[in-house]
Amino acid sequence: MAKVKKAPRPKAVTPKGFRDYFGAEVTERTEMLHQIAGVYHRYGFEALESAAVETVEALGKFLPDVDRPNEGVFAWQEADEDGQGDWMALRYDLTAPLARVYAQHRNDLPTPYRRYAMGPVWRNEKPGPGRYRQFYQCDADTVGAPSVAADAEICAMLSDTLETVGIPRGDYLVRVNNRKVLNGVLEAMGLGDDQAAKDNVLRTIDKFDKVGASGVRELLGKGRLDASGAYIDGVGLSDDQAEPVLAFLTSKADDVAKTFANLRDAVGGSSVGADGIAELEQIGDLLAAGGYGADRIEIDPSVVRGLGYYTGPVFEAELTFEIFDEKGRKRQFGSVSGGGRYDDLVKRFTGQAVPATGVSIGVDRLLAALREKGRIGGTTTGPVVVTVMDRDRMADYQAMVTELRNAGIRAEVYLGNPKNFGNQLKYADKRNSPVAVIEGGDEKANGVIQIKDLILGAKIAESATLEEWKERPSQFEVPRGDLVAKVREILASQTEGQG
Amino acid sequence: MAKVKKAPRPKAVTPKGFRDYFGAEVTERTEMLHQIAGVYHRYGFEALESAAVETVEALGKFLPDVDRPNEGVFAWQEADEDGQGDWMALRYDLTAPLARVYAQHRNDLPTPYRRYAMGPVWRNEKPGPGRYRQFYQCDADTVGAPSVAADAEICAMLSDTLETVGIPRGDYLVRVNNRKVLNGVLEAMGLGDDQAAKDNVLRTIDKFDKVGASGVRELLGKGRLDASGAYIDGVGLSDDQAEPVLAFLTSKADDVAKTFANLRDAVGGSSVGADGIAELEQIGDLLAAGGYGADRIEIDPSVVRGLGYYTGPVFEAELTFEIFDEKGRKRQFGSVSGGGRYDDLVKRFTGQAVPATGVSIGVDRLLAALREKGRIGGTTTGPVVVTVMDRDRMADYQAMVTELRNAGIRAEVYLGNPKNFGNQLKYADKRNSPVAVIEGGDEKANGVIQIKDLILGAKIAESATLEEWKERPSQFEVPRGDLVAKVREILASQTEGQG
Repeated sequence: MAKVKKAPRPKAVTPKGFRDYFGAEVTERTEMLHQIAGVYHRYGFEALESAAVETVEALGKFLPDVDRPNEGVFAWQEADEDGQGDWMALRYDLTAPLARVYAQHRNDLPTPYRRYAMGPVWRNEKPGPGRYRQFYQCDADTVGAPSVAADAEICAMLSDTLETVGIPRGDYLVRVNNRKVLNGVLEAMGLGDDQAAKDNVLRTIDKFDKVGASGVRELLGKGRLDASGAYIDGVGLSDDQAEPVLAFLTSKADDVAKTFANLRDAVGGSSVGADGIAELEQIGDLLAAGGYGADRIEIDPSVVRGLGYYTGPVFEAELTFEIFDEKGRKRQFGSVSGGGRYDDLVKRFTGQAVPATGVSIGVDRLLAALREKGRIGGTTTGPVVVTVMDRDRMADYQAMVTELRNAGIRAEVYLGNPKNFGNQLKYADKRNSPVAVIEGGDEKANGVIQIKDLILGAKIAESATLEEWKERPSQFEVPRGDLVAKVREILASQTEGQG
Repeated sequence: MAKVKKAPRPKAVTPKGFRDYFGAEVTERTEMLHQIAGVYHRYGFEALESAAVETVEALGKFLPDVDRPNEGVFAWQEADEDGQGDWMALRYDLTAPLARVYAQHRNDLPTPYRRYAMGPVWRNEKPGPGRYRQFYQCDADTVGAPSVAADAEICAMLSDTLETVGIPRGDYLVRVNNRKVLNGVLEAMGLGDDQAAKDNVLRTIDKFDKVGASGVRELLGKGRLDASGAYIDGVGLSDDQAEPVLAFLTSKADDVAKTFANLRDAVGGSSVGADGIAELEQIGDLLAAGGYGADRIEIDPSVVRGLGYYTGPVFEAELTFEIFDEKGRKRQFGSVSGGGRYDDLVKRFTGQAVPATGVSIGVDRLLAALREKGRIGGTTTGPVVVTVMDRDRMADYQAMVTELRNAGIRAEVYLGNPKNFGNQLKYADKRNSPVAVIEGGDEKANGVIQIKDLILGAKIAESATLEEWKERPSQFEVPRGDLVAKVREILASQTEGQG
């Protein structure tokens, strides 16, 4: 072979902020996506898969007017004839590609267009612990439906989805708010056209989750001493002006009628505020008609996430059970999904406003929640391992695994160096194999095989006395013809044992 | 809202060489990947999902010693403190990431390591008709197993996979060759250490599929006039020297024993050639022991694709049925999968040679084949559409779709502007809806609903006389309580009709 230029050995490392997923990490996610797609499909949504790559122009947030427009995205410039082609980038979410696809294909798509999409997205951000630069999103959106019936449907679907993937009723809550009610509140505050003041109020509301009602009151007024001791300047509103905001954020009552009454007080005479409340009432009615009560979906004006971004109803799904964080403190698991109505989806492309509403599920967080609760994960069972006692009889062992596989049993023949039998059992152990099959020369001559129950064997080795060990054999000699039947019997007994 | 800088509207276009996949195009591929993963899993392979992004250094083919090392890949430079970070790239296949992962995690992985991976890869190539810059690969590899039992297993698994996804026995053939036999042939030619001559022979053999045996003979000798009239210079070998190559390429006989005899003649006294033949015989024996006969997998020395790249056994799966190409000519569908043994997988990283063998399935080509044969595709059924006759009774319609969905029936309420009823039926048509449900004010008052069989309706509209049309109603009035039962009955009758 020709010798290539000597170069230092490359480092075998995952690039910073990316990671590899092995075995069950992959298959559990695949299974969850499969379940979610099933619910979305039942609701009439159609799959869409666009490429990972979009033009920076179409992605929109990042315009090629700087030398290297890669703030936030992974971007590169195509080499055309002049070496200066279009800027391309990896998608940073699934909504921007939906906008492009809908604008491009709108004449061929039904109106309304219900679509779902699932796949990785990429963010060019500083990676941190548990924060990766590639992660999965799983979205469903309805484009072209102005009615809040579309929003209600998304909420119902989100509820069904969570239960389908294994979050039982009572362990989650879909909470609904409406940006229009907040707009009514801003009107009631008498801020008029003072956009800067409105923006300040929006930014302050965003901190509600962290600082609570009293914190928001301080920040809307004179200011606040934060936990670090720094003084945060306030927006400078009077107590009277701040009042509608507080009334809005704390309007949730045990009784939904009372919540609506509180909201009506908060928006005063604002007509957009009244519209927003009417929309929330309609959503409540539609959901009630479908049997989705407050144990699954509730109107909750304290949901502030996304209120700045969305233009109408806003939804968030929260897991309500407690987990222990890395410091051993109890805390709520929190949000696994969010969404809402955004009515300017394709306007950038076509000049026409098109109503749209949708939701995005954080599958990786959902998986983490299910693992936390022990509902998935744990030990995954490896394949039955047929050991190799005589390397010249590989064909015999091959025939055994084929029989097992044809019977639907996951199985493999040991393919490493068979010289050291201990290594074969170590391998089976590393693979979490439930059963090992052994056929040495004597067995072959006698037409029998040895079948080892590795799970039972490990249990006995751990805890049994010598007496027990003798009484409860974990290795069985059976006729060669009973291979499949005996392995099946052992696998069944192991599954029972898990109960 | 603050006015942003006025910019021309962006173009809503898929970037050149990429495409969008809609509906069944997505779900059929997902289903196929799911089926393939099932077979791989049964064979003991474990899932691996690495990120789309690798360092250019780890990818290996493309070194950062040129200004912009993006020949063939999509690459960009990370911005670090000095603005000059690592070069990153989108993976161009799934083998290069496997090499990196194995080198990085080898101490935690079992040996041998059987892994499968499926997902998109990216090529920065000039796009052409039907050639995209993002496409799916679906790989299975065994790392750390020197035995040809690993190669035989891959061939058996490939055969099982093709049958599982819907290619019946007889419609495909897995063909096996061995690079070592070719090495023996090169030895028998007496080329000694003349690497340039050997490379010339390899390049010529690559053209065997196109120019056939006589063409290869000419190209190994004086040269050849090609179809365009251009004269292609030959390698300049004598007829005697060229003879072993021709003997090798044409050695396949009806009887496998005869094929092996022909190969033995071709390699003469070469020991590496004899090794190669022995490996092929072992593979044949192992497969026969598993019941994989020549109707599924056969030894075929005329398989030349990849012989230059691989170091041992080489496999290729071909679909053997004929299709009509775009010009209406009959031709064989051809290759859908290829693979082989490559023993220098991780050497770049660790300095140690690690044996590996694997296969890659072209899922998009397989899907095309199944569509061509009418085994998937055709019309996909849309959701049941509940129409909106009275927009104030949205909650009633919502309750109907919920009932249908809870019964496992795909259903949606019409979410567009309900004013024009014709538009609702047009929408149902565009969605391929099987059934429409109608409940106007009169029906509501009488406690009934109208259920329209849209498939039957379309059939009758197409072909029936007025008499028949009257006799075979496609619209039924039933009590509201019979919604689910009647829809289910109609859906069942439609499925029967498809027989």
